[in-house]
Amino acid sequence: MYKLVLLRHGESTWNQENRFTGWTDVDLSPKGMQEASAAGKTLRDAGLTFDIAYTSVLKRAIRTCWLALESMDLLWLPTVRSWRLNERHYGALQGLNKSETAAQYGEAQVKIWRRSYDIPPPPLEVTDERFPGFDRRYSGLPDSDLPRTECLKDTVDRFLPFWHETIAPSILSGQRVIVVAHGNSLRALVKYLDNIGDDDIVELNIPTGLPLVYDLDAHLKPIKSEYLGDPDAVRAAMEAVAKQGKAK
Amino acid sequence: MYKLVLLRHGESTWNQENRFTGWTDVDLSPKGMQEASAAGKTLRDAGLTFDIAYTSVLKRAIRTCWLALESMDLLWLPTVRSWRLNERHYGALQGLNKSETAAQYGEAQVKIWRRSYDIPPPPLEVTDERFPGFDRRYSGLPDSDLPRTECLKDTVDRFLPFWHETIAPSILSGQRVIVVAHGNSLRALVKYLDNIGDDDIVELNIPTGLPLVYDLDAHLKPIKSEYLGDPDAVRAAMEAVAKQGKAK
Repeated sequence: MYKLVLLRHGESTWNQENRFTGWTDVDLSPKGMQEASAAGKTLRDAGLTFDIAYTSVLKRAIRTCWLALESMDLLWLPTVRSWRLNERHYGALQGLNKSETAAQYGEAQVKIWRRSYDIPPPPLEVTDERFPGFDRRYSGLPDSDLPRTECLKDTVDRFLPFWHETIAPSILSGQRVIVVAHGNSLRALVKYLDNIGDDDIVELNIPTGLPLVYDLDAHLKPIKSEYLGDPDAVRAAMEAVAKQGKAK
Repeated sequence: MYKLVLLRHGESTWNQENRFTGWTDVDLSPKGMQEASAAGKTLRDAGLTFDIAYTSVLKRAIRTCWLALESMDLLWLPTVRSWRLNERHYGALQGLNKSETAAQYGEAQVKIWRRSYDIPPPPLEVTDERFPGFDRRYSGLPDSDLPRTECLKDTVDRFLPFWHETIAPSILSGQRVIVVAHGNSLRALVKYLDNIGDDDIVELNIPTGLPLVYDLDAHLKPIKSEYLGDPDAVRAAMEAVAKQGKAK
């Protein structure tokens, strides 16, 4: 049996401003930093440790990973960063806040982009300065891998190869793995692990800063999963998840 | 022509206490953290950037690397940690301060251990809690790679395979490389690059927190090297290095 820990980054500076972030490389807020350090303490107090960490190439996840590992005195841990763990790319909505977006596209349309599994927001032009092709960290990628926008299905499709080719073999080799990532890249993984349907996954929110611990069998199928942390925070998170399930 | 940047970590909490540190995993002091951030700003202001960072598995180098990359907005940079970049292992002297050491072994003997190229301090017993075999980060290493003590020659011998097998191919593939490490692991590299004799290298001190920039030819032979930073600090460092050369 294997253990796998997932951790969603804490609050970012744009969460506070209620803007669509996506691949925009905003940092954690002070509250987000506290959440990250607290998650590390929770893991340490639960007696968990790791052999390798996987995170995205966006600093809100990278810093969350760093602060959690710092709380565990594991700054030496090998840490692999991949764009495939990035947040869902939010296309032309990136940088807009909700009211700007509603004014430009209409509230009904925005709800579709936020809540559908397979309808992406409007794509960025490749001449747009927000296009990932202009960012040096993606310069090694073929054009076909550079998103102009993504629906959740697109995020699942570009995340899963990293699971199959890198993370899963790492777990099967006996490494204890933590994945520190984003709401939607973690949804992609939870959807795959728990075999959640396309309609249900968009309603399932993964709370920030609460480590989600999976027990996996020899074929990496989940035996159980649970959130760790302050009992009230965990209860609230679990109730929210249960409610989301019922609403379907 | 290639560029290679070397950076020695800033002041640690034990530098202040004047203790032999070696592989003891002490953190940076507040001053050391400022040095690291300043080094990153210096590199950024000089128009330098990187594709990959190499550092040790000791947190004073790892944190220096992190803070320098943070100053350059490069937290996403792939960062590889290896025990081969660790500080020289100081054997049974690790944790002792200078006066304790002189009282126990005599001043003349301590000077030999500090300044000879090939005479190591007394080795740790493998039952000593300071022996690296008890530290999980070295658990993947064969016993023959676990030092009980090191002279500078030993540090050179275990550093150079990492240069030849990992860093040099990385530079030759076109990656812009920064190496963030320790006084003696960087001495090992400078000795090799500049072809410095066994007696001269122990007198050559690499200043903390000042990036050392090498221009290398197609065979990775140095064309020139220079320290970057505050002109007074660089001048003092260069004079100190020149004086060390003359003293021989």
